[in-house]
Amino acid sequence: MSNDGNYIYSHATGLAAKTVEQHQAPQDLVFYAGWFCPYVQRSWISLEEKGIPYQYKEVNPYKKEQHFLDINPKGLVPAIEYKSKALYESLILCEFFEDAFPEHTPHLLTTDPFDRAYVRLWVDHVSKQIVPTFMRLVMAQEPEKQREHLADFYKGVRTLTDKVKGPYFLGEQFSLVDIALAPWVLRDYILAENRGYSREAAGSAWVAYAKALETRESVLRTQSDKEHYAQIYARYLRNEAQSEAAKAIRAGKPF
Amino acid sequence: MSNDGNYIYSHATGLAAKTVEQHQAPQDLVFYAGWFCPYVQRSWISLEEKGIPYQYKEVNPYKKEQHFLDINPKGLVPAIEYKSKALYESLILCEFFEDAFPEHTPHLLTTDPFDRAYVRLWVDHVSKQIVPTFMRLVMAQEPEKQREHLADFYKGVRTLTDKVKGPYFLGEQFSLVDIALAPWVLRDYILAENRGYSREAAGSAWVAYAKALETRESVLRTQSDKEHYAQIYARYLRNEAQSEAAKAIRAGKPF
Ligand SMILES: N[C@@H](CCC(=O)N[C@@H](CS)C(=O)NCC(=O)O)C(=O)O
Ligand SMILES: N[C@@H](CCC(=O)N[C@@H](CS)C(=O)NCC(=O)O)C(=O)O
Repeated sequence: MSNDGNYIYSHATGLAAKTVEQHQAPQDLVFYAGWFCPYVQRSWISLEEKGIPYQYKEVNPYKKEQHFLDINPKGLVPAIEYKSKALYESLILCEFFEDAFPEHTPHLLTTDPFDRAYVRLWVDHVSKQIVPTFMRLVMAQEPEKQREHLADFYKGVRTLTDKVKGPYFLGEQFSLVDIALAPWVLRDYILAENRGYSREAAGSAWVAYAKALETRESVLRTQSDKEHYAQIYARYLRNEAQSEAAKAIRAGKPF
Repeated sequence: MSNDGNYIYSHATGLAAKTVEQHQAPQDLVFYAGWFCPYVQRSWISLEEKGIPYQYKEVNPYKKEQHFLDINPKGLVPAIEYKSKALYESLILCEFFEDAFPEHTPHLLTTDPFDRAYVRLWVDHVSKQIVPTFMRLVMAQEPEKQREHLADFYKGVRTLTDKVKGPYFLGEQFSLVDIALAPWVLRDYILAENRGYSREAAGSAWVAYAKALETRESVLRTQSDKEHYAQIYARYLRNEAQSEAAKAIRAGKPF
Protein backbone atom coordinates (compact mmCIF):
# COMPACT_ATOMS: atom_id res chain seq x y z
CA MET A 1 0.00 0.00 0.00
CA SER A 2 1.25 3.48 -0.86
CA ASN A 3 0.93 6.59 1.24
CA ASP A 4 -0.04 8.70 -1.78
CA GLY A 5 -3.51 9.01 -0.24
CA ASN A 6 -2.19 11.35 2.44
CA TYR A 7 -1.43 13.98 -0.16
CA ILE A 8 -4.95 14.22 -1.49
CA TYR A 9 -7.35 16.96 -0.48
CA SER A 10 -10.40 15.24 1.01
CA HIS A 11 -13.16 16.46 -1.27
CA ALA A 12 -14.15 18.16 -4.51
CA THR A 13 -13.98 21.94 -4.75
CA GLY A 14 -15.22 24.54 -7.24
CA LEU A 15 -18.03 23.54 -9.58
CA ALA A 16 -17.42 19.83 -8.95
CA ALA A 17 -18.32 20.36 -5.27
CA LYS A 18 -21.77 21.62 -6.33
CA THR A 19 -22.27 18.58 -8.56
CA VAL A 20 -21.30 16.26 -5.71
CA GLU A 21 -23.77 18.03 -3.42
CA GLN A 22 -26.58 17.52 -5.93
CA HIS A 23 -25.88 13.76 -6.04
CA GLN A 24 -26.05 12.66 -2.42
CA ALA A 25 -29.48 11.00 -2.45
CA PRO A 26 -29.54 7.18 -2.73
CA GLN A 27 -29.95 5.86 -6.27
CA ASP A 28 -29.77 2.49 -8.03
CA LEU A 29 -26.39 3.56 -9.38
CA VAL A 30 -23.70 4.36 -6.81
CA PHE A 31 -20.66 6.09 -8.31
CA TYR A 32 -17.44 5.48 -6.31
CA ALA A 33 -15.22 8.37 -7.24
CA GLY A 34 -12.18 10.37 -6.33
CA TRP A 35 -12.73 14.04 -7.23
CA PHE A 36 -9.08 14.36 -8.34
CA CYS A 37 -8.91 11.39 -10.69
CA PRO A 38 -8.88 11.93 -14.46
CA TYR A 39 -10.22 8.40 -15.07
CA VAL A 40 -13.11 9.11 -12.71
CA GLN A 41 -13.78 12.32 -14.57
CA ARG A 42 -14.33 10.38 -17.80
CA SER A 43 -17.15 8.32 -16.33
CA TRP A 44 -18.46 11.33 -14.44
CA ILE A 45 -18.68 13.41 -17.62
CA SER A 46 -20.64 10.57 -19.26
CA LEU A 47 -23.11 10.43 -16.36
CA GLU A 48 -23.58 14.21 -16.47
CA GLU A 49 -23.93 14.31 -20.26
CA LYS A 50 -26.60 11.62 -20.21
CA GLY A 51 -28.46 12.82 -17.12
CA ILE A 52 -28.32 9.37 -15.54
CA PRO A 53 -29.41 9.42 -11.87
CA TYR A 54 -26.48 8.49 -9.61
CA GLN A 55 -25.29 8.80 -6.04
CA TYR A 56 -21.75 10.18 -5.70
CA LYS A 57 -19.54 8.57 -3.05
CA GLU A 58 -16.06 9.96 -2.41
CA VAL A 59 -13.40 7.24 -1.98
CA ASN A 60 -9.69 7.62 -1.31
CA PRO A 61 -8.48 4.68 -3.43
CA TYR A 62 -4.99 4.79 -1.94
CA LYS A 63 -6.38 3.69 1.43
CA LYS A 64 -7.58 0.33 -0.03
CA GLU A 65 -10.39 -0.10 2.50
CA GLN A 66 -12.03 -3.51 2.46
CA HIS A 67 -15.52 -2.30 1.57
CA PHE A 68 -14.04 -0.70 -1.55
CA LEU A 69 -11.88 -3.72 -2.48
CA ASP A 70 -15.09 -5.78 -2.37
CA ILE A 71 -16.40 -3.56 -5.16
CA ASN A 72 -13.19 -3.27 -7.15
CA PRO A 73 -10.53 -5.86 -6.30
CA LYS A 74 -8.03 -3.69 -8.16
CA GLY A 75 -8.71 -0.92 -5.64
CA LEU A 76 -9.04 1.77 -8.29
CA VAL A 77 -11.58 4.52 -8.84
CA PRO A 78 -13.87 4.90 -10.73
CA ALA A 79 -16.13 1.98 -9.81
CA ILE A 80 -19.89 1.61 -9.61
CA GLU A 81 -22.49 -0.51 -7.91
CA TYR A 82 -25.66 -0.93 -9.91
CA LYS A 83 -28.50 -3.05 -8.53
CA SER A 84 -25.97 -4.79 -6.25
CA LYS A 85 -23.48 -5.63 -9.00
CA ALA A 86 -20.06 -4.00 -9.25
CA LEU A 87 -18.13 -2.72 -12.25
CA TYR A 88 -14.99 -0.64 -12.83
CA GLU A 89 -12.52 0.69 -15.44
CA SER A 90 -13.42 4.18 -16.68
CA LEU A 91 -13.98 3.39 -20.36
CA ILE A 92 -15.87 0.17 -19.64
CA LEU A 93 -18.15 2.19 -17.37
CA CYS A 94 -18.71 4.72 -20.17
CA GLU A 95 -19.69 1.89 -22.53
CA PHE A 96 -21.90 0.38 -19.82
CA PHE A 97 -23.82 3.64 -19.48
CA GLU A 98 -24.50 3.52 -23.23
CA ASP A 99 -25.72 -0.09 -23.06
CA ALA A 100 -27.70 0.13 -19.82
CA PHE A 101 -29.39 3.50 -20.40
CA PRO A 102 -30.18 3.53 -24.13
CA GLU A 103 -33.01 6.03 -23.64
CA HIS A 104 -30.58 8.60 -22.15
CA THR A 105 -29.08 10.84 -24.83
CA PRO A 106 -26.67 11.91 -26.22
CA HIS A 107 -25.38 8.59 -27.55
CA LEU A 108 -21.72 9.14 -26.82
CA LEU A 109 -20.63 6.17 -28.95
CA THR A 110 -23.10 7.15 -31.73
CA THR A 111 -25.60 4.60 -33.05
CA ASP A 112 -24.05 3.73 -36.43
CA PRO A 113 -21.86 0.57 -36.25
CA PHE A 114 -19.06 2.03 -38.34
CA ASP A 115 -18.98 5.28 -36.36
CA ARG A 116 -18.96 3.33 -33.10
CA ALA A 117 -15.85 1.44 -34.25
CA TYR A 118 -14.29 4.70 -35.42
CA VAL A 119 -14.90 6.28 -32.00
CA ARG A 120 -13.40 3.21 -30.30
CA LEU A 121 -10.31 3.40 -32.54
CA TRP A 122 -9.59 6.96 -31.45
CA VAL A 123 -10.40 6.26 -27.81
CA ASP A 124 -7.77 3.54 -28.15
CA HIS A 125 -5.32 6.11 -29.54
CA VAL A 126 -5.98 8.41 -26.58
CA SER A 127 -5.55 5.52 -24.14
CA LYS A 128 -2.38 4.12 -25.64
CA GLN A 129 -0.59 7.09 -27.22
CA ILE A 130 -1.67 10.18 -25.29
CA VAL A 131 -2.47 9.33 -21.66
CA PRO A 132 0.58 7.13 -20.87
CA THR A 133 2.86 9.62 -22.63
CA PHE A 134 1.44 12.41 -20.46
CA MET A 135 2.31 10.31 -17.41
CA ARG A 136 5.78 9.39 -18.67
CA LEU A 137 6.46 13.05 -19.36
CA VAL A 138 5.35 14.13 -15.89
CA MET A 139 7.43 11.43 -14.21
CA ALA A 140 10.61 11.79 -16.30
CA GLN A 141 13.52 13.39 -14.41
CA GLU A 142 16.34 13.66 -16.97
CA PRO A 143 16.04 16.56 -19.45
CA GLU A 144 16.77 14.23 -22.38
CA LYS A 145 13.94 11.84 -21.43
CA GLN A 146 11.64 14.82 -20.91
CA ARG A 147 12.42 16.07 -24.40
CA GLU A 148 11.78 12.62 -25.88
CA HIS A 149 8.43 12.21 -24.11
CA LEU A 150 7.37 15.77 -24.94
CA ALA A 151 8.03 15.08 -28.63
CA ASP A 152 6.02 11.84 -28.30
CA PHE A 153 3.20 13.74 -26.63
CA TYR A 154 3.04 16.34 -29.41
CA LYS A 155 3.07 13.52 -31.95
CA GLY A 156 0.16 11.69 -30.29
CA VAL A 157 -1.79 14.93 -30.02
CA ARG A 158 -1.17 15.93 -33.65
CA THR A 159 -2.18 12.53 -35.00
CA LEU A 160 -5.51 12.99 -33.21
CA THR A 161 -5.91 16.66 -34.07
CA ASP A 162 -5.57 15.85 -37.78
CA LYS A 163 -8.87 13.95 -37.48
CA VAL A 164 -10.81 16.50 -35.39
CA LYS A 165 -13.73 17.88 -37.40
CA GLY A 166 -14.39 20.64 -34.88
CA PRO A 167 -15.53 21.85 -32.49
CA TYR A 168 -15.50 18.23 -31.20
CA PHE A 169 -13.81 15.16 -32.57
CA LEU A 170 -16.78 14.04 -34.68
CA GLY A 171 -17.97 17.60 -35.44
CA GLU A 172 -20.99 19.00 -33.60
CA GLN A 173 -21.55 15.68 -31.87
CA PHE A 174 -19.81 15.22 -28.50
CA SER A 175 -18.46 11.65 -28.16
CA LEU A 176 -16.38 9.25 -26.09
CA VAL A 177 -13.22 10.41 -27.88
CA ASP A 178 -13.73 13.87 -26.38
CA ILE A 179 -14.54 12.37 -22.99
CA ALA A 180 -11.57 10.00 -22.96
CA LEU A 181 -9.24 12.95 -23.55
CA ALA A 182 -10.82 15.94 -21.77
CA PRO A 183 -9.47 15.24 -18.24
CA TRP A 184 -5.89 15.44 -19.50
CA VAL A 185 -6.58 18.63 -21.41
CA LEU A 186 -7.74 20.23 -18.16
CA ARG A 187 -4.52 19.06 -16.52
CA ASP A 188 -2.09 20.05 -19.26
CA TYR A 189 -1.13 23.20 -17.32
CA ILE A 190 0.98 20.79 -15.24
CA LEU A 191 3.02 20.10 -18.38
CA ALA A 192 3.07 23.78 -19.31
CA GLU A 193 4.35 24.86 -15.89
CA ASN A 194 6.89 22.06 -15.46
CA ARG A 195 7.86 20.43 -18.74
CA GLY A 196 8.10 23.17 -21.37
CA TYR A 197 4.85 22.19 -23.11
CA SER A 198 2.52 24.69 -24.74
CA ARG A 199 -0.73 24.14 -26.60
CA GLU A 200 0.42 26.53 -29.31
CA ALA A 201 3.43 24.33 -30.05
CA ALA A 202 1.00 21.51 -30.95
CA GLY A 203 -0.75 23.74 -33.48
CA SER A 204 -3.77 26.04 -33.68
CA ALA A 205 -6.17 23.13 -34.28
CA TRP A 206 -5.12 21.67 -30.92
CA VAL A 207 -5.57 25.07 -29.23
CA ALA A 208 -9.13 25.29 -30.58
CA TYR A 209 -10.03 21.68 -29.77
CA ALA A 210 -8.62 21.92 -26.23
CA LYS A 211 -10.67 25.08 -25.67
CA ALA A 212 -13.85 23.36 -26.91
CA LEU A 213 -13.26 20.47 -24.52
CA GLU A 214 -12.46 22.52 -21.43
CA THR A 215 -15.49 24.77 -21.83
CA ARG A 216 -18.02 21.94 -22.32
CA GLU A 217 -20.58 22.18 -19.50
CA SER A 218 -20.22 18.55 -18.32
CA VAL A 219 -16.46 19.02 -18.16
CA LEU A 220 -16.75 22.22 -16.15
CA ARG A 221 -19.27 20.65 -13.79
CA THR A 222 -16.86 17.84 -12.88
CA GLN A 223 -13.83 20.05 -12.34
CA SER A 224 -12.25 21.05 -9.05
CA ASP A 225 -9.92 23.97 -8.30
CA LYS A 226 -6.63 23.69 -10.13
CA GLU A 227 -4.47 24.20 -7.05
CA HIS A 228 -5.70 20.92 -5.57
CA TYR A 229 -4.77 18.95 -8.67
CA ALA A 230 -1.29 20.49 -8.61
CA GLN A 231 -0.76 19.17 -5.07
CA ILE A 232 -1.16 15.59 -6.31
CA TYR A 233 1.01 16.05 -9.37
CA ALA A 234 3.87 17.34 -7.21
CA ARG A 235 4.66 13.74 -6.24
CA TYR A 236 4.53 12.58 -9.85
CA LEU A 237 6.77 15.44 -10.95
CA ARG A 238 9.43 14.26 -8.49
CA ASN A 239 8.77 10.65 -9.54
CA GLU A 240 7.78 9.74 -5.98
CA ALA A 241 4.22 8.60 -6.63
CA GLN A 242 3.43 5.00 -5.65
CA SER A 243 0.06 4.64 -7.36
CA GLU A 244 -0.64 1.55 -9.48
CA ALA A 245 -0.36 3.72 -12.60
CA ALA A 246 3.00 5.18 -11.53
CA LYS A 247 4.37 1.71 -10.79
CA ALA A 248 3.13 0.39 -14.14
CA ILE A 249 4.71 3.32 -16.01
CA ARG A 250 8.03 2.66 -14.28
CA ALA A 251 7.85 -1.06 -15.08
CA GLY A 252 6.87 -0.40 -18.71
CA LYS A 253 3.59 -2.26 -18.27
CA PRO A 254 0.05 -1.40 -19.34
CA PHE A 255 -2.41 -0.12 -16.70
CA MET B 1 10.63 -0.91 -41.86
CA SER B 2 11.69 -4.23 -40.47
CA ASN B 3 12.75 -7.33 -42.38
CA ASP B 4 10.69 -9.60 -40.13
CA GLY B 5 8.44 -10.23 -43.13
CA ASN B 6 11.12 -12.33 -44.80
CA TYR B 7 10.82 -14.96 -42.10
CA ILE B 8 7.12 -15.59 -42.62
CA TYR B 9 5.78 -18.52 -44.57
CA SER B 10 3.65 -17.10 -47.36
CA HIS B 11 0.26 -18.65 -46.63
CA ALA B 12 -1.95 -20.53 -44.23
CA THR B 13 -1.55 -24.29 -43.84
CA GLY B 14 -3.55 -27.06 -42.17
CA LEU B 15 -7.23 -26.42 -41.47
CA ALA B 16 -6.77 -22.65 -41.84
CA ALA B 17 -5.75 -23.17 -45.49
CA LYS B 18 -9.13 -24.79 -46.16
CA THR B 19 -10.94 -21.90 -44.51
CA VAL B 20 -8.96 -19.42 -46.61
CA GLU B 21 -9.86 -21.36 -49.75
CA GLN B 22 -13.57 -21.19 -48.90
CA HIS B 23 -13.37 -17.40 -48.57
CA GLN B 24 -11.93 -16.22 -51.86
CA ALA B 25 -15.10 -14.91 -53.51
CA PRO B 26 -15.66 -11.14 -53.41
CA GLN B 27 -17.86 -9.95 -50.50
CA ASP B 28 -18.87 -6.62 -48.95
CA LEU B 29 -16.46 -7.39 -46.14
CA VAL B 30 -12.80 -7.84 -47.09
CA PHE B 31 -10.67 -9.29 -44.29
CA TYR B 32 -6.98 -8.32 -44.53
CA ALA B 33 -5.19 -10.98 -42.59
CA GLY B 34 -1.89 -12.65 -41.88
CA TRP B 35 -2.44 -16.37 -41.26
CA PHE B 36 0.26 -16.35 -38.54
CA CYS B 37 -1.01 -13.44 -36.48
CA PRO B 38 -2.72 -14.09 -33.13
CA TYR B 39 -4.54 -10.73 -33.33
CA VAL B 40 -5.87 -11.67 -36.77
CA GLN B 41 -7.01 -14.96 -35.37
CA ARG B 42 -9.23 -13.19 -32.83
CA SER B 43 -11.21 -11.37 -35.51
CA TRP B 44 -11.15 -14.46 -37.72
CA ILE B 45 -12.64 -16.64 -34.98
CA SER B 46 -15.42 -14.04 -34.55
CA LEU B 47 -16.21 -14.07 -38.27
CA GLU B 48 -16.30 -17.88 -38.30
CA GLU B 49 -18.40 -18.12 -35.14
CA LYS B 50 -20.98 -15.71 -36.52
CA GLY B 51 -21.01 -17.01 -40.10
CA ILE B 52 -20.47 -13.52 -41.51
CA PRO B 53 -19.68 -13.59 -45.25
CA TYR B 54 -16.14 -12.30 -45.85
CA GLN B 55 -13.36 -12.41 -48.42
CA TYR B 56 -9.98 -13.41 -47.01
CA LYS B 57 -6.93 -11.53 -48.32
CA GLU B 58 -3.46 -12.52 -47.19
CA VAL B 59 -1.21 -9.54 -46.37
CA ASN B 60 2.39 -9.51 -45.19
CA PRO B 61 2.13 -6.52 -42.82
CA TYR B 62 5.90 -6.22 -42.48
CA LYS B 63 6.17 -5.17 -46.11
CA LYS B 64 4.09 -2.01 -45.48
CA GLU B 65 2.80 -1.80 -49.04
CA GLN B 66 1.01 1.42 -49.88
CA HIS B 67 -2.35 -0.18 -50.73
CA PHE B 68 -2.37 -1.69 -47.25
CA LEU B 69 -1.23 1.50 -45.49
CA ASP B 70 -4.20 3.22 -47.15
CA ILE B 71 -6.45 0.81 -45.27
CA ASN B 72 -4.56 0.79 -41.98
CA PRO B 73 -2.10 3.68 -41.56
CA LYS B 74 -0.57 1.73 -38.66
CA GLY B 75 0.31 -1.03 -41.13
CA LEU B 76 -0.98 -3.81 -38.89
CA VAL B 77 -3.17 -6.82 -39.55
CA PRO B 78 -6.02 -7.49 -38.97
CA ALA B 79 -7.86 -4.79 -40.93
CA ILE B 80 -11.08 -4.79 -42.89
CA GLU B 81 -12.77 -2.91 -45.66
CA TYR B 82 -16.53 -2.87 -45.42
CA LYS B 83 -18.58 -1.02 -48.02
CA SER B 84 -15.46 1.04 -48.89
CA LYS B 85 -14.67 2.04 -45.32
CA ALA B 86 -11.63 0.77 -43.44
CA LEU B 87 -11.25 -0.38 -39.84
CA TYR B 88 -8.57 -2.15 -37.81
CA GLU B 89 -7.51 -3.31 -34.30
CA SER B 90 -8.53 -6.88 -33.53
CA LEU B 91 -10.85 -6.26 -30.60
CA ILE B 92 -12.49 -3.24 -32.20
CA LEU B 93 -13.21 -5.41 -35.24
CA CYS B 94 -14.77 -8.05 -32.99
CA GLU B 95 -17.03 -5.40 -31.44
CA PHE B 96 -17.82 -4.05 -34.91
CA PHE B 97 -19.01 -7.48 -36.04
CA GLU B 98 -21.40 -7.52 -33.07
CA ASP B 99 -22.74 -4.06 -33.89
CA ALA B 100 -22.92 -4.38 -37.68
CA PHE B 101 -24.32 -7.95 -37.88
CA PRO B 102 -26.78 -8.14 -34.98
CA GLU B 103 -28.77 -10.90 -36.70
CA HIS B 104 -25.69 -13.16 -36.77
CA THR B 105 -25.44 -15.30 -33.65
CA PRO B 106 -23.86 -16.16 -31.26
CA HIS B 107 -23.72 -12.76 -29.57
CA LEU B 108 -20.12 -12.92 -28.45
CA LEU B 109 -20.47 -9.93 -26.14
CA THR B 110 -23.86 -11.21 -24.83
CA THR B 111 -26.94 -8.97 -24.92
CA ASP B 112 -27.27 -8.04 -21.24
CA PRO B 113 -25.61 -4.67 -20.43
CA PHE B 114 -24.00 -5.88 -17.23
CA ASP B 115 -22.66 -9.06 -18.84
CA ARG B 116 -21.27 -7.03 -21.75
CA ALA B 117 -19.31 -4.87 -19.32
CA TYR B 118 -18.16 -7.98 -17.46
CA VAL B 119 -16.90 -9.52 -20.72
CA ARG B 120 -15.09 -6.27 -21.58
CA LEU B 121 -13.44 -6.20 -18.13
CA TRP B 122 -11.94 -9.64 -18.67
CA VAL B 123 -10.98 -8.94 -22.27
CA ASP B 124 -9.11 -5.96 -20.79
CA HIS B 125 -7.38 -8.30 -18.34
CA VAL B 126 -6.31 -10.60 -21.19
CA SER B 127 -5.06 -7.60 -23.20
CA LYS B 128 -3.14 -5.92 -20.40
CA GLN B 129 -2.04 -8.74 -18.10
CA ILE B 130 -1.75 -11.87 -20.23
CA VAL B 131 -0.80 -11.00 -23.83
CA PRO B 132 2.00 -8.48 -23.12
CA THR B 133 3.41 -10.78 -20.43
CA PHE B 134 3.48 -13.65 -22.94
CA MET B 135 5.47 -11.37 -25.26
CA ARG B 136 7.83 -10.13 -22.54
CA LEU B 137 8.47 -13.73 -21.49
CA VAL B 138 9.24 -14.82 -25.05
CA MET B 139 11.59 -11.88 -25.62
CA ALA B 140 13.42 -11.96 -22.26
CA GLN B 141 17.01 -13.20 -22.50
CA GLU B 142 18.30 -13.27 -18.90
CA PRO B 143 17.14 -16.22 -16.76
CA GLU B 144 16.16 -13.91 -13.94
CA LYS B 145 13.89 -11.83 -16.17
CA GLN B 146 12.43 -15.00 -17.64
CA ARG B 147 11.57 -16.26 -14.15
CA GLU B 148 9.97 -12.94 -13.26
CA HIS B 149 7.83 -12.82 -16.41
CA LEU B 150 6.87 -16.49 -16.10
CA ALA B 151 5.63 -15.84 -12.56
CA ASP B 152 3.71 -12.82 -13.89
CA PHE B 153 2.23 -14.95 -16.65
CA TYR B 154 1.01 -17.61 -14.21
CA LYS B 155 -0.45 -14.87 -12.04
CA GLY B 156 -2.38 -13.31 -14.93
CA VAL B 157 -3.63 -16.72 -16.01
CA ARG B 158 -4.70 -17.76 -12.50
CA THR B 159 -6.57 -14.51 -11.88
CA LEU B 160 -8.59 -15.26 -15.01
CA THR B 161 -8.98 -18.98 -14.36
CA ASP B 162 -10.52 -18.22 -10.95
CA LYS B 163 -13.46 -16.68 -12.83
CA VAL B 164 -13.90 -19.35 -15.54
CA LYS B 165 -17.26 -21.08 -15.12
CA GLY B 166 -16.33 -23.82 -17.60
CA PRO B 167 -16.12 -25.07 -20.20
CA TYR B 168 -15.84 -21.45 -21.41
CA PHE B 169 -15.31 -18.25 -19.47
CA LEU B 170 -19.03 -17.51 -19.06
CA GLY B 171 -20.07 -21.17 -18.86
CA GLU B 172 -21.70 -22.82 -21.87
CA GLN B 173 -21.69 -19.52 -23.76
CA PHE B 174 -18.61 -18.82 -25.90
CA SER B 175 -17.64 -15.13 -25.65
CA LEU B 176 -15.08 -12.48 -26.54
CA VAL B 177 -13.05 -13.35 -23.44
CA ASP B 178 -12.43 -16.80 -24.92
CA ILE B 179 -11.69 -15.30 -28.32
CA ALA B 180 -9.30 -12.64 -26.98
CA LEU B 181 -7.26 -15.35 -25.29
CA ALA B 182 -7.48 -18.45 -27.52
CA PRO B 183 -4.70 -17.53 -29.99
CA TRP B 184 -2.14 -17.38 -27.19
CA VAL B 185 -3.34 -20.67 -25.75
CA LEU B 186 -2.63 -22.29 -29.11
CA ARG B 187 0.82 -20.76 -29.05
CA ASP B 188 1.74 -21.57 -25.46
CA TYR B 189 3.82 -24.55 -26.64
CA ILE B 190 6.42 -21.88 -27.51
CA LEU B 191 6.64 -21.07 -23.80
CA ALA B 192 6.61 -24.75 -22.86
CA GLU B 193 9.47 -25.61 -25.24
CA ASN B 194 11.60 -22.56 -24.49
CA ARG B 195 10.71 -20.91 -21.19
CA GLY B 196 9.96 -23.66 -18.69
CA TYR B 197 6.21 -23.08 -18.73
CA SER B 198 3.64 -25.84 -18.35
CA ARG B 199 -0.14 -25.70 -18.28
CA GLU B 200 -0.18 -28.01 -15.29
CA ALA B 201 1.87 -25.54 -13.25
CA ALA B 202 -0.96 -23.02 -13.70
CA GLY B 203 -3.47 -25.48 -12.25
CA SER B 204 -5.97 -28.05 -13.44
CA ALA B 205 -8.65 -25.45 -14.13
CA TRP B 206 -6.28 -23.82 -16.61
CA VAL B 207 -5.51 -27.17 -18.25
CA ALA B 208 -9.25 -27.79 -18.74
CA TYR B 209 -10.01 -24.28 -19.97
CA ALA B 210 -7.07 -24.28 -22.40
CA LYS B 211 -8.28 -27.62 -23.79
CA ALA B 212 -11.83 -26.26 -24.26
CA LEU B 213 -10.47 -23.27 -26.17
CA GLU B 214 -8.09 -25.15 -28.43
CA THR B 215 -10.70 -27.69 -29.47
CA ARG B 216 -13.43 -25.16 -30.32
CA GLU B 217 -14.30 -25.58 -33.99
CA SER B 218 -13.79 -21.91 -34.97
CA VAL B 219 -10.38 -21.99 -33.29
CA LEU B 220 -9.36 -25.15 -35.14
CA ARG B 221 -10.60 -23.78 -38.45
CA THR B 222 -8.35 -20.72 -38.16
CA GLN B 223 -5.23 -22.60 -37.13
CA SER B 224 -2.16 -23.34 -39.26
CA ASP B 225 0.52 -25.97 -38.72
CA LYS B 226 2.51 -25.41 -35.55
CA GLU B 227 5.92 -25.63 -37.21
CA HIS B 228 5.20 -22.46 -39.19
CA TYR B 229 4.34 -20.47 -36.07
CA ALA B 230 7.55 -21.65 -34.44
CA GLN B 231 9.56 -20.19 -37.32
CA ILE B 232 8.27 -16.72 -36.51
CA TYR B 233 8.75 -17.01 -32.79
CA ALA B 234 12.40 -17.94 -33.30
CA ARG B 235 13.19 -14.25 -33.87
CA TYR B 236 11.23 -13.21 -30.79
CA LEU B 237 12.96 -15.86 -28.68
CA ARG B 238 16.33 -14.34 -29.62
CA ASN B 239 14.89 -10.85 -29.09
CA GLU B 240 15.63 -9.95 -32.71
CA ALA B 241 12.08 -9.20 -33.87
CA GLN B 242 11.49 -5.68 -35.20
CA SER B 243 7.69 -5.70 -35.29
CA GLU B 244 5.77 -2.77 -33.84
CA ALA B 245 4.76 -4.97 -30.91
CA ALA B 246 8.35 -6.05 -30.23
CA LYS B 247 9.55 -2.44 -30.31
CA ALA B 248 6.73 -1.34 -27.99
CA ILE B 249 7.51 -4.15 -25.52
CA ARG B 250 11.18 -3.11 -25.49
CA ALA B 251 10.27 0.56 -24.96
CA GLY B 252 7.75 -0.31 -22.23
CA LYS B 253 4.92 1.23 -24.21
CA PRO B 254 1.38 -0.02 -24.95
CA PHE B 255 0.61 -1.45 -28.38
N1 LIG C 1 -7.45 1.98 -15.90
C1 LIG C 1 -8.17 2.56 -14.79
C2 LIG C 1 -7.27 3.52 -14.05
C3 LIG C 1 -7.91 4.10 -12.79
C4 LIG C 1 -6.86 4.69 -11.81
O1 LIG C 1 -5.66 4.52 -11.99
N2 LIG C 1 -7.35 5.41 -10.77
C5 LIG C 1 -6.44 5.93 -9.76
C6 LIG C 1 -6.77 7.34 -9.32
S1 LIG C 1 -6.58 8.49 -10.63
C7 LIG C 1 -6.53 5.07 -8.51
O2 LIG C 1 -7.60 4.64 -8.10
N3 LIG C 1 -5.38 4.80 -7.90
C8 LIG C 1 -5.24 4.03 -6.70
C9 LIG C 1 -3.92 3.30 -6.69
O3 LIG C 1 -3.16 3.44 -7.67
O4 LIG C 1 -3.63 2.59 -5.72
C10 LIG C 1 -9.41 3.27 -15.32
O5 LIG C 1 -9.40 3.66 -16.50
O6 LIG C 1 -10.42 3.38 -14.59
N1 LIG D 1 -3.18 -4.05 -31.46
C1 LIG D 1 -3.20 -4.69 -32.76
C2 LIG D 1 -1.95 -5.53 -32.97
C3 LIG D 1 -1.86 -6.15 -34.36
C4 LIG D 1 -0.43 -6.60 -34.70
O1 LIG D 1 0.52 -6.28 -33.98
N2 LIG D 1 -0.30 -7.34 -35.83
C5 LIG D 1 1.04 -7.73 -36.27
C6 LIG D 1 1.11 -9.15 -36.79
S1 LIG D 1 0.78 -10.32 -35.50
C7 LIG D 1 1.47 -6.84 -37.42
O2 LIG D 1 0.67 -6.52 -38.30
N3 LIG D 1 2.74 -6.43 -37.42
C8 LIG D 1 3.34 -5.62 -38.43
C9 LIG D 1 4.42 -4.76 -37.83
O3 LIG D 1 4.63 -4.84 -36.60
O4 LIG D 1 5.05 -3.99 -38.55
C10 LIG D 1 -4.47 -5.53 -32.86
O5 LIG D 1 -4.99 -5.94 -31.81
O6 LIG D 1 -4.99 -5.73 -33.98
